[in-house]
Amino acid sequence: MLFVTLYVIAITAEAMTAALSAGRRSMDWVGVCVIACVTALGGGSLRDVLLGHYPLTWVKHPEYLLITAAAALLTAFIAPVMRRLRALFLLLDALGLVVFTVIGCQVALEMQLSPIIVLVSGMITGCFGGVMRDVLCNEIPLLFRHELYASVSVLVGLVFIGTLYAGMPQQVAVLAAMVTGLVVRLLAIRFDWHMPKFVYRDDWK
Amino acid sequence: MLFVTLYVIAITAEAMTAALSAGRRSMDWVGVCVIACVTALGGGSLRDVLLGHYPLTWVKHPEYLLITAAAALLTAFIAPVMRRLRALFLLLDALGLVVFTVIGCQVALEMQLSPIIVLVSGMITGCFGGVMRDVLCNEIPLLFRHELYASVSVLVGLVFIGTLYAGMPQQVAVLAAMVTGLVVRLLAIRFDWHMPKFVYRDDWK
Amino acid sequence: MLFVTLYVIAITAEAMTAALSAGRRSMDWVGVCVIACVTALGGGSLRDVLLGHYPLTWVKHPEYLLITAAAALLTAFIAPVMRRLRALFLLLDALGLVVFTVIGCQVALEMQLSPIIVLVSGMITGCFGGVMRDVLCNEIPLLFRHELYASVSVLVGLVFIGTLYAGMPQQVAVLAAMVTGLVVRLLAIRFDWHMPKFVYRDDWK
Repeated sequence: MLFVTLYVIAITAEAMTAALSAGRRSMDWVGVCVIACVTALGGGSLRDVLLGHYPLTWVKHPEYLLITAAAALLTAFIAPVMRRLRALFLLLDALGLVVFTVIGCQVALEMQLSPIIVLVSGMITGCFGGVMRDVLCNEIPLLFRHELYASVSVLVGLVFIGTLYAGMPQQVAVLAAMVTGLVVRLLAIRFDWHMPKFVYRDDWK
Repeated sequence: MLFVTLYVIAITAEAMTAALSAGRRSMDWVGVCVIACVTALGGGSLRDVLLGHYPLTWVKHPEYLLITAAAALLTAFIAPVMRRLRALFLLLDALGLVVFTVIGCQVALEMQLSPIIVLVSGMITGCFGGVMRDVLCNEIPLLFRHELYASVSVLVGLVFIGTLYAGMPQQVAVLAAMVTGLVVRLLAIRFDWHMPKFVYRDDWK
Repeated sequence: MLFVTLYVIAITAEAMTAALSAGRRSMDWVGVCVIACVTALGGGSLRDVLLGHYPLTWVKHPEYLLITAAAALLTAFIAPVMRRLRALFLLLDALGLVVFTVIGCQVALEMQLSPIIVLVSGMITGCFGGVMRDVLCNEIPLLFRHELYASVSVLVGLVFIGTLYAGMPQQVAVLAAMVTGLVVRLLAIRFDWHMPKFVYRDDWK
């Protein structure tokens, strides 16, 4: 129950930041809604398609599509107010990353897949909605360049799996993973942490 | 029977306009064929993958791949003549949008999915081939920016579902949806209708 | 057995060239690993998703993900040495193309799909990992512009199917297809062969 609430908060937050991205590219309202749905639900959809986990969440619960589209349109209306809420958004976005990752890990666990796939499933769920948003907006995915984002997702998955393997109940694992992820993500934003970059300059293809 | 004919006309038209896009990017002939197949068959493929509706159309009917590739190569040969046929192409393209949308709605209906998913299925089938074309040609999808395209697709779906819910037989629903869609699309082209845009300028990410 | 060895060499080679691509875009180490996995395993994943052939290779054998990520990280460390190994890489890359294509054809054959789909399955497996890499790096896919790459993939598929239809055993078909593909690909690199391009300049959309 709490988890569904967190999930709805997470897709709403993702939809709102996606709508701002779409607005930066001057998209029309249909584009805003599509970008929002792809960003909020695309990571989970990619995971389900790759793992053969049907039906997809939004096919089973079409109300999530409506929530996402409504949040995106609302954002287009109240956009001028948004910049004052920046801190709130970064928090909600971090929450979304963590919630999505834990859900992705759980899906793979229930399918009894190996720990590596559990990790990858969490990372795809947590991060690839944003990758799709960037591809559709014709940008190099931010994920791979600026942010300690995918790394937090991997960390959340590691804590989640580790706690479970240590014999703890699932609620404890979820809580430990989420708290760790949120703390590291917020510290990363606050202190501008980055992963080392691999810069390669060469002429041959 | 009529529907198969319309479908073949639609994928041919999509393949030809896609070939021109590929030509604008100076792609080689393989690229032209691939872009044409992705544009003409990609929307339906994405729908089938997301809904778990296997086998995909072109896997069951590989002849559609041949038709698409042949239409694309033909277009590369007769390209200089194409600009004189602009009006014909806009008409065929509008027909393709409407036919694809109705097919997408029908697939979701047959799977007994909810009305929202029927609408979304129609829109994905009608519009996402073009989105994939733009992503592969490294452009911001046109769909989200310039055209009253996705909106027509949504409208076609609404009329289709509405007519069915009103108790009309399926043939009437197909006809009503297609006529409405074609008329609105052609009026939109003629009078340069647009959806309102959401323009957002801000510095923070 | 030999085939698994060739497959591992192929994904390693693809992961290493992908890591260099990611380095050219200054991605961080997570981005390098993701781009490497998508490039090395993306073509096969797309094929499996389109054909409904579950579970995907890397879900069943997660060790391939580890090999790919390890190869990518190693590449980031030894990048300065890489330019001296250019000839080796072009050879391994050609091997990868040919091995992937033959595997793709075999998957479709085992599913008893039609010859056209066998060809397409081989081409998707051989080429679309590179297409995804270019889309994520925000480039027009190289495949469609510069290289006799997709054409070699189609040729490999044709030789493979043709040899099988001529009644030869599968080992002979695999060998004939791989040798033909390697020779043509290396000749294409050596003599700079290209497919004809379709260049189209026009103003209307």
